[in-house]
Amino acid sequence: MAEDFQKMDEKDDLYAINRDIVEDVLKAVEADSQSDLLAIFQDLHEADIADILEQITPEDRRRVMRLWGEHVDGEVLTELEEGVRDDIMEDTPDEILAEAVKDLDTDDVVYLVEDLEPPQQEKLLESLDDADRIAVEQSLSHEEDTAGRLMQREMVVAPQHWTVGDAIDYMRSATDLPQDFYDVIVVNPAMHPVGTVPLGKLMGAAREVFLSELMNPDFHAIPVDTPDEDVAYIFNQYHMVSAPVVDHNGRLVGVITIDDAMEILEDEAEEDMKRLAGVGDEELSSSVRETAKLRFPWLAVNLVSSITAAFVISRFSDAINSMVALAVLMPIVASMGGNAGTQTLTVTVRALATRDLTSANALRIIGREMAVGLVNGLAFAVLVGGIGYFWFGNPMLGVVLGLAMIGNMFVAALAGILVPMGLEKLGADPALASGAFVTTMTDIVGFFTFLGLATLILL
Amino acid sequence: MAEDFQKMDEKDDLYAINRDIVEDVLKAVEADSQSDLLAIFQDLHEADIADILEQITPEDRRRVMRLWGEHVDGEVLTELEEGVRDDIMEDTPDEILAEAVKDLDTDDVVYLVEDLEPPQQEKLLESLDDADRIAVEQSLSHEEDTAGRLMQREMVVAPQHWTVGDAIDYMRSATDLPQDFYDVIVVNPAMHPVGTVPLGKLMGAAREVFLSELMNPDFHAIPVDTPDEDVAYIFNQYHMVSAPVVDHNGRLVGVITIDDAMEILEDEAEEDMKRLAGVGDEELSSSVRETAKLRFPWLAVNLVSSITAAFVISRFSDAINSMVALAVLMPIVASMGGNAGTQTLTVTVRALATRDLTSANALRIIGREMAVGLVNGLAFAVLVGGIGYFWFGNPMLGVVLGLAMIGNMFVAALAGILVPMGLEKLGADPALASGAFVTTMTDIVGFFTFLGLATLILL
Repeated sequence: MAEDFQKMDEKDDLYAINRDIVEDVLKAVEADSQSDLLAIFQDLHEADIADILEQITPEDRRRVMRLWGEHVDGEVLTELEEGVRDDIMEDTPDEILAEAVKDLDTDDVVYLVEDLEPPQQEKLLESLDDADRIAVEQSLSHEEDTAGRLMQREMVVAPQHWTVGDAIDYMRSATDLPQDFYDVIVVNPAMHPVGTVPLGKLMGAAREVFLSELMNPDFHAIPVDTPDEDVAYIFNQYHMVSAPVVDHNGRLVGVITIDDAMEILEDEAEEDMKRLAGVGDEELSSSVRETAKLRFPWLAVNLVSSITAAFVISRFSDAINSMVALAVLMPIVASMGGNAGTQTLTVTVRALATRDLTSANALRIIGREMAVGLVNGLAFAVLVGGIGYFWFGNPMLGVVLGLAMIGNMFVAALAGILVPMGLEKLGADPALASGAFVTTMTDIVGFFTFLGLATLILL
Repeated sequence: MAEDFQKMDEKDDLYAINRDIVEDVLKAVEADSQSDLLAIFQDLHEADIADILEQITPEDRRRVMRLWGEHVDGEVLTELEEGVRDDIMEDTPDEILAEAVKDLDTDDVVYLVEDLEPPQQEKLLESLDDADRIAVEQSLSHEEDTAGRLMQREMVVAPQHWTVGDAIDYMRSATDLPQDFYDVIVVNPAMHPVGTVPLGKLMGAAREVFLSELMNPDFHAIPVDTPDEDVAYIFNQYHMVSAPVVDHNGRLVGVITIDDAMEILEDEAEEDMKRLAGVGDEELSSSVRETAKLRFPWLAVNLVSSITAAFVISRFSDAINSMVALAVLMPIVASMGGNAGTQTLTVTVRALATRDLTSANALRIIGREMAVGLVNGLAFAVLVGGIGYFWFGNPMLGVVLGLAMIGNMFVAALAGILVPMGLEKLGADPALASGAFVTTMTDIVGFFTFLGLATLILL
């Protein structure tokens, strides 16, 4: 089986880490050969090295880190998933960490140190040069998950009156340009950004042209306390590659680049997907114990929900006793409702996340979902009604099944859209626990309408 | 209620389209005032105008487009979701479309025309100037959803022997620089890309420095037939903002930029999320009819699955007849299994999509999921066993419930990871129909083990 997965890798996953590289790394560790390890890592991108560290066992990971020793690369640390990064940073001597983070951009340093315990955090900050340390400390003074934490201090700023030539001369003489930058930020004397000039525009213009003539007309300055999902939305919506960040007085304090926005966008989509499925903040590297513990609460919610449904069924014990076909057919109604509800729920959660569902179309979309619930409810009512009739030879059983189906699929549609919209309105995450709410609703309504109608009509 | 949603907008969604703007647009249409409409649109980003068009009714949309008339903006068309775009392009006169697409980058033109019927496509292509038309036609000759379709022809290329000064002089004199570009692509005499120079590096270097000294060492040239999800992965993994595309002989044919990669990444995550929930390619603007039709097949699969489960139950009619508590408790086992299976499934599908689950760690992760299934199966076995005992006063009923729970949660874990990995190995989308497979499995196993064990032990 392992060989099969390997073949799969060779064919489809040209760019994913494959077993060969991982085995080479482990061989270098086995041979205790730092030079072999460095030779392998030299050809790999930092993100790929991070992937390798994530995919091996915790024990192997510690051995790799020990062998890597003083050559540990700070960029690799920024690429790691949180759980693995925490483990590694706890185990790595402070001097090695200090060396590794020294040349990172300030946003990366903030990202690495923000979750460290105060003593280790202080030690690392002390090892930075003064300008960097102050920048990192100022970033850390902003709230977590806001633009202030995402931004870097390294940026290229030009006064309004400069020409293209002034800007180029300045950049040529500057010794501390950011690692990656895409715009020159133009500021007024109060340090308020008034526009950005993409480097491509700067390149295409003559030296004597004023920067103010080349500025991007629809640039967005991002307030320092903007939540990071809003930052990601702005970058995605307006196809930006970088944006200036301003403080409460509108003064320029940093810049956010596309790679940070892209990562947040990915994380947000992943979070929604996981929450809809009742999975918490686990990572692929989480241990059995952590994973089981993180999934337990979601399963416990589902247990309460299914016991409630069981209680509803128990109220109809007499009906089931006199007609066992009811016990056979009742899960069909509940299951179809759960499925239809999950469809609506998923579409709604996603549309709220991408901000395609707003006040301008909310009522129309609610109406559409109700109509879809009715239409498909009717269609499946006919189908299951027929099945109930032919299977058990009882036409009224078919009618009861069909009616319960319509009712439950309509409720499913309503719950599927109103629950997440309600959570959003209350300021909660619409994906959070929506799934449990909706399927509890469809289970209870499904069992109740089917068994209740059966009691009224059949018995 | 509509007012409440509006308030929500004002507070939380600073950047989303709000009802006021939409109402202003509709007022302009009502007054038949093109100048009002143009005044509103002038202050909006193309992506926001597209959002407005998506959120109004099809009828209003047609009226807005008619009023917009010859001022229709091609950029707005590229921002629309597919269904709305198709409707609009069908209704808009060819002359207006031709005018609207004339100044777009070639990748945007390709994106707009690739799904058009041949006669309309040809008409639009004819309206382009020759160089653009040939570029678009060459892009269209590549397969859909590959790098060849994503790339634009507009790029900045420099021979290996150039200096920074040569490159800057060339760009100053060029009249057809791309709208946005971030790198100069350095090629050898055979037109093979040998490296890229980020504009930021170019800016920081003296005129006499050779480009070859500034090249990004780990640049990735993307083969023209690379599937677009691989393109998105590469951009995300290596934090790239642009990448050269090469043909089968390694010659440079175009460039892909970050905005395209970001869109694919979003689309892929959304597609996985929807497929896991059994929702097809619907859009928020889809009509009731389309939506109901697109969701029907997924519900039909669920119907087959739940009828199979009902059939399993029907085999145990006698057991239920002699002990109605079985009918009351059986949905708990099925539901908990379904939930645990969905947890594992979602984590697996996501890990396959982000390529964190590879041959290097597959066996370990399968082992982890099995262990988690057992651990949580045991925990909930104790819980539900106790509940079964106290509710119905029958200790052996509790034991049966607990054993069935362990069995079903273990099977759920196995199915949750092996089904998507199997689909991936077969070259299918792991998210596709995984949900239906897994819940069918957990329903059948849940009902069968619980009712079967009950028959063996209790009756």
